[in-house]
Amino acid sequence: MKYLLSISYCGTAYAGFQIQKNANTIQAELIKAAEKIFNVPCLVTGCSRTDSGVHALEYLAVAEPSEGCSRISADKLPRALASALPPDISVMEARVVDDDFSIRHAVKGKEYMYLIWTKEYMNPFLYLRAWHYTKKLDIDKMNRAAERLVGKHDFASFMASGSEVAKTVRTITRCEVVADDDGCVRVFVAADGFLYNMVRIIVGTLVYVSEGKIAVDDIDKIIRSKDRSLAGKTAPADGLYLEKVFI
Amino acid sequence: MKYLLSISYCGTAYAGFQIQKNANTIQAELIKAAEKIFNVPCLVTGCSRTDSGVHALEYLAVAEPSEGCSRISADKLPRALASALPPDISVMEARVVDDDFSIRHAVKGKEYMYLIWTKEYMNPFLYLRAWHYTKKLDIDKMNRAAERLVGKHDFASFMASGSEVAKTVRTITRCEVVADDDGCVRVFVAADGFLYNMVRIIVGTLVYVSEGKIAVDDIDKIIRSKDRSLAGKTAPADGLYLEKVFI
Repeated sequence: MKYLLSISYCGTAYAGFQIQKNANTIQAELIKAAEKIFNVPCLVTGCSRTDSGVHALEYLAVAEPSEGCSRISADKLPRALASALPPDISVMEARVVDDDFSIRHAVKGKEYMYLIWTKEYMNPFLYLRAWHYTKKLDIDKMNRAAERLVGKHDFASFMASGSEVAKTVRTITRCEVVADDDGCVRVFVAADGFLYNMVRIIVGTLVYVSEGKIAVDDIDKIIRSKDRSLAGKTAPADGLYLEKVFI
Repeated sequence: MKYLLSISYCGTAYAGFQIQKNANTIQAELIKAAEKIFNVPCLVTGCSRTDSGVHALEYLAVAEPSEGCSRISADKLPRALASALPPDISVMEARVVDDDFSIRHAVKGKEYMYLIWTKEYMNPFLYLRAWHYTKKLDIDKMNRAAERLVGKHDFASFMASGSEVAKTVRTITRCEVVADDDGCVRVFVAADGFLYNMVRIIVGTLVYVSEGKIAVDDIDKIIRSKDRSLAGKTAPADGLYLEKVFI
């Protein structure tokens, strides 16, 4: 039996999704909770790694309890898991999927939201949940730069150095900056796949555009260069939210 | 010199605003931060008590450093205090007020917002920041009951027992329930003053109306009875936010 879980979590207390030694991770918490509920060993596979401190408004994972597990219907699973999970991880929905379902193959794309808090004072409710950036952001200019990123490109310039990925071509389907009246600026980036730190580097680059350190017209050149050092700084993990997973 | 501070805080870690022995309080943190910044003893007076776990989107307080304090202009004060305050308390704005300014006298009224999270799963970002209530809420019915509370009434039925207040007449200028599309229901209550636990008892009563335990037409009778036991349960502190202070 395989269950597809739709999960939301506040990543502040975790060293990312993926299980690792000597660190709290979302995956470790999910495995522990699932094994408690199903009374058998349980595999939990996620739709992507997320970094330390990164959050998820929607994250997909597959839970696969071993043979002989307690029988729990999918509609009762979120509540059952809630009783065994810490309050910063929540299973929003569960459904049964075919035994040959592979989350890695099923995922067609993802959308991230990056939250920037722009007022002079910090919003105490967004501590470790947003980037506190107080210089005036030029939203129009940022959006003109963002548009240049949309499409199929080699995004090697927007990948943290040290990552070993053979193919760095991705297709961005949405890159948009939205400001609200309450001091929040949100950057939305949707793509068929993401390189390591790609969204955070994109956000840092758009902020550099706002600051005049990078010109809108430079974006094409930065993409072509495949040179990480030409893009902006990596924005902090605190503001990053996995928002939607397309399957 | 007196400064009027506009403050926001997440109350989860605190035993309310008012200073007390052997407990973390907002007032104690403000005094400690102000004394560090001004280098002299400092009085801090708040616009109201708030209970343990209650939050504030806008709270007003007056800071009054003793003679011989370091000179800090009002516009620099929020940032200076931020360096000495924990991240769950933030000073949004500061301005100089007359030496005879009294916060207790200046406050003409307040508005509270009570946040209810209604989806089956808990929103991990609202843990200890909302009441998790999952039965279907009848917003129309709640609003019809809420309307009965608006006006000048003796609200003794909506005051926690054990409080010793001579006068229990207050004027509610707004009592409204608003549901959004994302699973949040907000109850707004504005009045010229509040009795102990008044908003939380009002929210508990409106929820009882939704559940059919109290009829809309019973509200007038409950007010007239001045009997706390006829009103609904006290809703949890987690969902309560002081939202605006009218001066």
